[in-house]
Amino acid sequence: VKTTVGILGAGQLGCMLASALHDLDAEVRFYDPDPRAPGMRRFAGGRVASFSDEGALSEHLRACDVVTVEMEHVDTAALRKIGARLVPSVDVIETAGSRRKEKAFLRARQLPHVAFATAHDVAELRAAVAEVGAPCIVKTSLGGYDGRGQWRIEVESAAATVIGAIGHALGERFSLTVEERVDLAQELSCIVARDGTSEVVFPLFENVHEAGVLDLTMLPARVDPRVAEAARDIALETARALDVKGLLAVEFFVLERPPARSPSHSVAGVHLCINELAPRPHNSGHVTRVATDVSQFDMLARVLLGVPLATPRLVDPGGWCMANLLGERFGADGALATTALGAAADGLCELVLYGKPTAVNGRKMGHLSTRGADVENARASARRLRDALTVTR
Amino acid sequence: VKTTVGILGAGQLGCMLASALHDLDAEVRFYDPDPRAPGMRRFAGGRVASFSDEGALSEHLRACDVVTVEMEHVDTAALRKIGARLVPSVDVIETAGSRRKEKAFLRARQLPHVAFATAHDVAELRAAVAEVGAPCIVKTSLGGYDGRGQWRIEVESAAATVIGAIGHALGERFSLTVEERVDLAQELSCIVARDGTSEVVFPLFENVHEAGVLDLTMLPARVDPRVAEAARDIALETARALDVKGLLAVEFFVLERPPARSPSHSVAGVHLCINELAPRPHNSGHVTRVATDVSQFDMLARVLLGVPLATPRLVDPGGWCMANLLGERFGADGALATTALGAAADGLCELVLYGKPTAVNGRKMGHLSTRGADVENARASARRLRDALTVTR
Repeated sequence: VKTTVGILGAGQLGCMLASALHDLDAEVRFYDPDPRAPGMRRFAGGRVASFSDEGALSEHLRACDVVTVEMEHVDTAALRKIGARLVPSVDVIETAGSRRKEKAFLRARQLPHVAFATAHDVAELRAAVAEVGAPCIVKTSLGGYDGRGQWRIEVESAAATVIGAIGHALGERFSLTVEERVDLAQELSCIVARDGTSEVVFPLFENVHEAGVLDLTMLPARVDPRVAEAARDIALETARALDVKGLLAVEFFVLERPPARSPSHSVAGVHLCINELAPRPHNSGHVTRVATDVSQFDMLARVLLGVPLATPRLVDPGGWCMANLLGERFGADGALATTALGAAADGLCELVLYGKPTAVNGRKMGHLSTRGADVENARASARRLRDALTVTR
Repeated sequence: VKTTVGILGAGQLGCMLASALHDLDAEVRFYDPDPRAPGMRRFAGGRVASFSDEGALSEHLRACDVVTVEMEHVDTAALRKIGARLVPSVDVIETAGSRRKEKAFLRARQLPHVAFATAHDVAELRAAVAEVGAPCIVKTSLGGYDGRGQWRIEVESAAATVIGAIGHALGERFSLTVEERVDLAQELSCIVARDGTSEVVFPLFENVHEAGVLDLTMLPARVDPRVAEAARDIALETARALDVKGLLAVEFFVLERPPARSPSHSVAGVHLCINELAPRPHNSGHVTRVATDVSQFDMLARVLLGVPLATPRLVDPGGWCMANLLGERFGADGALATTALGAAADGLCELVLYGKPTAVNGRKMGHLSTRGADVENARASARRLRDALTVTR
C-alpha cells in the first residue's frame, strides 16, 4: 500500500518534494488556495481551499498518512485545532515562522545569534532601538521574507524619523524585531535532517544575497575547515534543541570582527551568528539536487515515508553553483531567452523553471545549477549562462 | 502563453518526460487507457481512454499544441486519420513499431543490420528459416519487446519442431521475422535528437541484457574510440534516413567475428550491426539524467517546445552505470528493501521508482544510477546497491 503525503503549499518547493516522493513510490496530495500554483496545475489530486478553512483542511488531511508544509508562514491555528500529524510539528513551524519566537528560542538556548529586541508599539520600538543601538535593522516578526518588511537605521540621529515612518506604515500595534546590524564577510547555510531515529547534516553552502534575495549558492563553501565543522555542529545542535523532525535549514552570518552586542561563536579567526531558521527545504539546498547523492528533497521524502536516512555526500570532487532566476530576467510574456540554450553550456547540470503564472520582479521563477573544476569555475559558468538566458527588455 | 504537450502513454518514460517538460515551463496532458498508469495517477489533466477511440483521441489532441508517444507499439491508424501533429511522425512510429518494416528500412538504406526474412504463414516460415539458416531467432513483427515473442532454432534438425510449435501457438496467419543468430561480444546503444534545424548525438552507451531485458547501461561504453565514432555516425545516418524529429535510439550488436549473412560495418577489428530502433526516450538513456548536461528527456522536451538543442556532454570525467529494477526484486506488497538506503551508498546518483500498480517478474519497476572513478567502479556500486535493495522472498 502506498503512503499518501499531503503538502500544504503548491509552490516550487512543494513541486520538487513531490517529484522526490514519487521517486520513492508515494502518492502526493497538494493543498493550496491558488488554483494557478505550479503544484496544483501539474499534479493530480490537489485541493484548492484556504489554509484557514478548517473543514477543507481536515477533510484533506484525513486522506493523508502524513502531512508537511512547504513554508513556515502558515496559519497554524487551524492545524493545531485539527491535531494533524504534521512533519515538522506545529511547534517547530510556529517558532521558525515568527522572527520574534525564533530569536527568543536562540537566546534561550544560548545559540549564537544577532542581538535583538522586540516591539509592539512605537514606545517599545523607541526603547528597542535605544537598546540595540544604531546601526540596526527593524524587521516584521511575521510574514517577512526575501528582504521584505525591513527598515534600516544607519545612525542614532535618523532613528526618530524611521520610527515615525514605521508607525505611519503599520499603525498603533505591530510585531517587530530590532536587530544589530553586523558587517557580513560571508553568508553560509546548513541543512540538517532528522527522523526521530537518526540525524544527518548536509555539506555547508556558501550564499550570496542581492537586495535581500538569495542570488547564488556555492558548494563547497569557501571557508576554513574548522569554520565548516563549527557551523555544521551548531546547525545540528539547533535542530536538536528545536527537536525538528524533517529538515532544518540554518542560515549563518560570518563576521570578521566580533559584533558589538551579538553573542557569536568564534572559530578560526571569524565569528558565526545564526541569522534565520527554516524547517523545510531551502532555496540554498537546491544545489543538492545535482551535487549530493541524496538531495534535500529526497531526504525529506525519506523522513516522511520512514525510509532510513543516509549521510549525504558530494557525488564527486569539484565545485557547484546554483543561481536563482528572478522575475526581472523574464520577458513580459513570462518566457526566458531559451535560444541561449542552443550553445553548449559549460558545466550546466540543471535548469528548472517553476511554472509560476506571472513573472514579477524579485519573484523566484526558477534556478540553474552548474558544476566546475572548483567553485569559482562553477560560479563563472552559472553567471554566464544566466546572463545569456536573461531577456533584454 | 505556455505550450501544452500531449503524451500518449503514461508509463515511466512519459513521467520522466513530463518532469523535463515542466522544467521548461510547459503544460502536460497524458492520455492512457489505464487509470492506474503512473502518469495518470500523478499528473493533472490526463484523459483515460482507448488508443483506438478516435473521438476521445481527437478531443484530447485538439487541446495540445504538440503530441508525442512514449512507445512505438501504438495503433497508428487512429492517429493517421486524425492527422495529429505528432513528434515523431506517424511514418516513423510505424516503421520502428514493426520489426518487419524496420528491418526492410535498414536493408533498403544499406545500413548494417542482422540478416532476416519475413513470414506470414507456416510455409513462408519454413522458407524463411531455410533462407536464414540455423542458428536463428524467430520474432514477432509487432508488439514484441523485452525478449517476449521470440523462439530460437539452434540447429537445422530442430527447425521442423519449432515451426510446428509456432504454428500451433499463433494459428494460420501471423507476422514473423527470422533473424540470423549472431555471437554478441558486446551491445551498444546511441541516441540521436533532431528538431528539423539541428541534430545532436549522445555519447555511446554500453548495455548488458539479461533474459532479453536491459539489465545495466554503462557510460562511457568500453570500446575503441573508432568503434564509438562509427556507431554514432551510423546512428545519425539512420536518424537522417528515417527523417526522425524527436529522438531515435539505435541499438547495436558488436561482433568479434564477421557474421555469416548479415551486412555489418567493420571497424577496428569488430563488426557492428543495428539490432533495433526506438523513436522515443530509451531505457539505456536513463543514465543521461545524471551523466550528461542535457538528458534524453530534456532533449526531447526541447524538440517539442522549440527550444534549441545543444550537444550533450558528460558533466565530468568518470564513469556511470544505470541498473534496472525489475519486478522480481520487489516484495509481494510491491515494496523494495529500502532499509538498505540507510547505509551511505558509494556513488549513488539517483533512485527512481516508477509507481507501477503491481510488481510482476520482468516488469521494469524502477532504476538506479551510480557514478564511479570509472565504469567498472560505477558498475560494482550499482550491483552492490541493487542487491542490497532486493527483497529476499
